[in-house]
Amino acid sequence: MDRGLFITFEGIDGCGKSTQIGLLTACLEDIGKPFLLVREPGGTVIGEKIRSILLDKENNEMSPEAELLLFEAARAQIVAEKIRPAIEAGTTVICDRFYDSTFAYQGVARSLGEDLVVTLNDIATSGLAPDITFLLDLSVEDAYARRKGRGEADDRMELLGLEFQRNVRNGYLKAADSFDRIVVVDAGRTPEEIFADIKKTVEERL
Amino acid sequence: MDRGLFITFEGIDGCGKSTQIGLLTACLEDIGKPFLLVREPGGTVIGEKIRSILLDKENNEMSPEAELLLFEAARAQIVAEKIRPAIEAGTTVICDRFYDSTFAYQGVARSLGEDLVVTLNDIATSGLAPDITFLLDLSVEDAYARRKGRGEADDRMELLGLEFQRNVRNGYLKAADSFDRIVVVDAGRTPEEIFADIKKTVEERL
Repeated sequence: MDRGLFITFEGIDGCGKSTQIGLLTACLEDIGKPFLLVREPGGTVIGEKIRSILLDKENNEMSPEAELLLFEAARAQIVAEKIRPAIEAGTTVICDRFYDSTFAYQGVARSLGEDLVVTLNDIATSGLAPDITFLLDLSVEDAYARRKGRGEADDRMELLGLEFQRNVRNGYLKAADSFDRIVVVDAGRTPEEIFADIKKTVEERL
Repeated sequence: MDRGLFITFEGIDGCGKSTQIGLLTACLEDIGKPFLLVREPGGTVIGEKIRSILLDKENNEMSPEAELLLFEAARAQIVAEKIRPAIEAGTTVICDRFYDSTFAYQGVARSLGEDLVVTLNDIATSGLAPDITFLLDLSVEDAYARRKGRGEADDRMELLGLEFQRNVRNGYLKAADSFDRIVVVDAGRTPEEIFADIKKTVEERL
């Protein structure tokens, strides 16, 4: 049996990932192609427990390295328990953010080191890389305006600041320079225009 | 101010670590030398939460990589929150097991790979290595007999089997071959004889 395609979506908050994932899953349903949609760091019993440690506001003294290792532990679990078995069973797997987010946020924007994150990503996945990664690239100002229009702009994005988001965007673009699997998509267009590009790329590989 | 000494104790279950740590801390108290005694993976609020995930019997589908990364996350936290600040404040730090246990158990006995564990150990500690590591070396048969004599032989040791313990012992000895900081101590003698060696080594460095 053919292996399933492993597709990930990346980009800063407000770039339009959810909309594009919704369009892609609807499209796969239409053609009767089985898929699994996952989102880190949850998705497994162990991952949910790790997630609750990461989100607990009491844990404000968490060291950056501990935070990074917890994300990678949750990743190792979801890869072993869900993603790899699904791919091996021929199911398409779609991830709403995956390890390029760790590269962009922790490796670049938080300056923990790109090589360090690449090493940990490889350990956590036992070498399983996405087949296609769509990076929905958008300026920080446009992403912010979009979220504000949806009444969502008062969370993490504002808390961390636009300068931080700019560093995250640069981190994603740096990842795209390093890894051929990353397809940079101009997310400053209509959802239909963006999805036309994504659909074409996926169809070529299905 | 001088940095504190960072001392770790390693060895298979039943090798006599607790006895030697008790003798060393009593000795430090006698001479009025401040010390901090820690034991992984707990010792911090975050570490205790990680420990509860590791010990939860419901989590029997935990992937080996996730387990390893959780241990390392707890380590990163205790190093950042307790061990490094204590050492920098001039306090002697004593650890009942530290990262050579991960090398021996996960790296060698569970075959996750020695280089992988060394890489993760280095990430979790941000390069902070013990000054002295005492490896209390004892045959698996002697350690088993000692635990049986204390009525403790029905736990992990028997569950995992003597063959596994033998692999762990070999893992520790492999670590001792690689790292000069590890002092191999013949643990098949009386506690007093063993402690005389440990005391001498510590006094030379204090």
